[in-house]
Amino acid sequence: MIQPEQLSAMAQRAQTDPIADIFNAVMPRQAADPSFISLAAGPPQNQLLPNDLLPELVAAAQATDKRQGLLNYTMPQGLPPLRAGFAAMLNKQGVACSPEAMLITSGGMEAISLAAQLTLNPGDTVLVESPAFPGAIATFKQCGAQVVHLACDKDGLKPDVLEKAIAEHKPKLVSLMVDYQNPAGWVMPAERREQIAGILKATGTLAIEDGVYSLLRFEGEPVPPLQSYAPEHVMYAASVSKILAPAMRIGCLVAPGALLQKAAAIKSSYNMQASGFTQALTERFLNPDALYLDKQLARLRETYKKRRDSMMDALQEHLPAGAGYVWTSPAGGMFLWLEGPADTDFTRLFKPALDNGVAYVPGPMFFADPSLGKTAARLNFASTPEEDIPEGIRRLALTLTGRR
Amino acid sequence: MIQPEQLSAMAQRAQTDPIADIFNAVMPRQAADPSFISLAAGPPQNQLLPNDLLPELVAAAQATDKRQGLLNYTMPQGLPPLRAGFAAMLNKQGVACSPEAMLITSGGMEAISLAAQLTLNPGDTVLVESPAFPGAIATFKQCGAQVVHLACDKDGLKPDVLEKAIAEHKPKLVSLMVDYQNPAGWVMPAERREQIAGILKATGTLAIEDGVYSLLRFEGEPVPPLQSYAPEHVMYAASVSKILAPAMRIGCLVAPGALLQKAAAIKSSYNMQASGFTQALTERFLNPDALYLDKQLARLRETYKKRRDSMMDALQEHLPAGAGYVWTSPAGGMFLWLEGPADTDFTRLFKPALDNGVAYVPGPMFFADPSLGKTAARLNFASTPEEDIPEGIRRLALTLTGRR
Repeated sequence: MIQPEQLSAMAQRAQTDPIADIFNAVMPRQAADPSFISLAAGPPQNQLLPNDLLPELVAAAQATDKRQGLLNYTMPQGLPPLRAGFAAMLNKQGVACSPEAMLITSGGMEAISLAAQLTLNPGDTVLVESPAFPGAIATFKQCGAQVVHLACDKDGLKPDVLEKAIAEHKPKLVSLMVDYQNPAGWVMPAERREQIAGILKATGTLAIEDGVYSLLRFEGEPVPPLQSYAPEHVMYAASVSKILAPAMRIGCLVAPGALLQKAAAIKSSYNMQASGFTQALTERFLNPDALYLDKQLARLRETYKKRRDSMMDALQEHLPAGAGYVWTSPAGGMFLWLEGPADTDFTRLFKPALDNGVAYVPGPMFFADPSLGKTAARLNFASTPEEDIPEGIRRLALTLTGRR
Repeated sequence: MIQPEQLSAMAQRAQTDPIADIFNAVMPRQAADPSFISLAAGPPQNQLLPNDLLPELVAAAQATDKRQGLLNYTMPQGLPPLRAGFAAMLNKQGVACSPEAMLITSGGMEAISLAAQLTLNPGDTVLVESPAFPGAIATFKQCGAQVVHLACDKDGLKPDVLEKAIAEHKPKLVSLMVDYQNPAGWVMPAERREQIAGILKATGTLAIEDGVYSLLRFEGEPVPPLQSYAPEHVMYAASVSKILAPAMRIGCLVAPGALLQKAAAIKSSYNMQASGFTQALTERFLNPDALYLDKQLARLRETYKKRRDSMMDALQEHLPAGAGYVWTSPAGGMFLWLEGPADTDFTRLFKPALDNGVAYVPGPMFFADPSLGKTAARLNFASTPEEDIPEGIRRLALTLTGRR
């Protein structure tokens, strides 16, 4: 028998991902009923992943592997040509970075977790949005940090709120997603990014910007990343999970030199390095000559826009007018945020929704304190075929209005 | 400018891998001189990795992927068929485990690091062998633990030494490699394993057994793992890095249920999961019907034995008789341990050795306190073609005796 005192303080804090409970509840429903519609998904739809490209990418990676080192260890910081590919892609988005000031990580989550481990001691405060990405909340809590949610509006985190919170909490880290935020779907306007960057600089506060959805824009003009306004204060997490394939487990962390060196040391003693093989495949995929990335992005943007439109129309049609429902209208990404009137309880309605053949993620999953967010839910519009979305929303509306 | 107080205590402790300095010194020599012989390598030789198998494994993984989910996220604990494959392989080696009590990790190092994070708070003590695997030392130090080296003989860690050290230090963890230890090359006899397991059980002490070299046996009979004598006290780390390819970044941690659940939570909030794609390739590779593993193991064992023999003969021939040199004669694995007379300083001789066209890893790299181990060096016999080994040892002997 393991005694509690044999566990480290961190292990005692570590909690199984609460979203896993959602998926464990949804999976048997989907297996039993092919007409079940899940709007709870986090992952992209299998059919939208470039499965057909795989043999080609493998062959190309083998062909460029003159030293037969494709299957061996590689440089802990990451393959130089992949870092060059990431840097070129991120520079185009406005991220201030070079292949040298970048660490290849085993997915975007690892980059966020490294930002946390770089900065957070037990008892430190980290500021996050309301609502916030559950993976980030979990890793901050595991570090023993106090997670403080800040008020947001339709443009994301509010500068005056941030300023006050920094003065009050002296946070070690601010965590932000300013493009098509998961779960809220908002985009922060350029002017606000500049204001927030100014506050970070003036107060000497470090932030981590999660840019994993940034390229999934299907409307409007791209906005420069927050990081571009304060590269010495904002670390940047990128990933190919949403644009190539989650199973590559390839992302990167951009950070000022002193932080990056420490991040590399932490990662190296945690798992040595990201896979040199999936790094090489990713390098081939990002290579601009091959147009793989361009084609895949065009496909995803077109598909996701159609599905977003389908969900907007269905929400308009099925949710009772004047009953107080509001939802975000994302210009990119995969998720929207639905808020009901004050007496709505999406947690309580989860099981009735399953019985009605539809699933979503209840709002409390996106808060460190699960008593918050009950009136809201995250809906994934990107991973369900557009022809199924209206029926999914119809079932959701039936659940919300108590009819079947 | 990042201020030191902006870094977490863990980040302040994190240190770049000192072995990286060795490789950074060796690489330009190898690039400049094709006749340079490095006996310093950790990785397997590129030419011994199953590069040719790759397209076949990818095609097989795609063919079994009915749901087109190969490139998507998978279960955080790891693909069930891969866990079944690992369990079958490990059961054959005597490891007490089931597919359910196993976490797929991103390489064997991650399994060791998880064992550390599960148990170690800053200030806690971890007991290790003399010498010990530098990756483990680094991850223990990063956790803030006190790393205490215990005396070993040609059969590994001595039970009476362990017993005394447990009484004195009340360690949270004992770290052991009992098969073809890296760097010493020893194998612990079954009787001693049983004694050590008895001590762990009697004192309620947890251990992590690193089994990554266990299948690379080319001589003698296999010995049951330490874990098999005390499965409730010994966690077990396995990996396919040494039998398939490091770039898969696939390993596994076997641990009692309560620990395993916490390990899964820690890994999940660190990097979500190991790559589902390289998990599927590994699953195909381990599948007993295909005989891939059997063939690759036969090839490695035959090659490594020849190279071990070549190095034994060369050491016998070139090191001056009666001068006090001793070395281990490994029955498996990749490394041997060479000890010189009391005035030998392998750290000081490293540069002269490079100038003589040969490299090794100096002994201090395998101790938490780098003032230890100066009279010793790790030699890799497995990753150099057997025809080059005698010349490498001749150059090493010239360096040691001060001639050129």
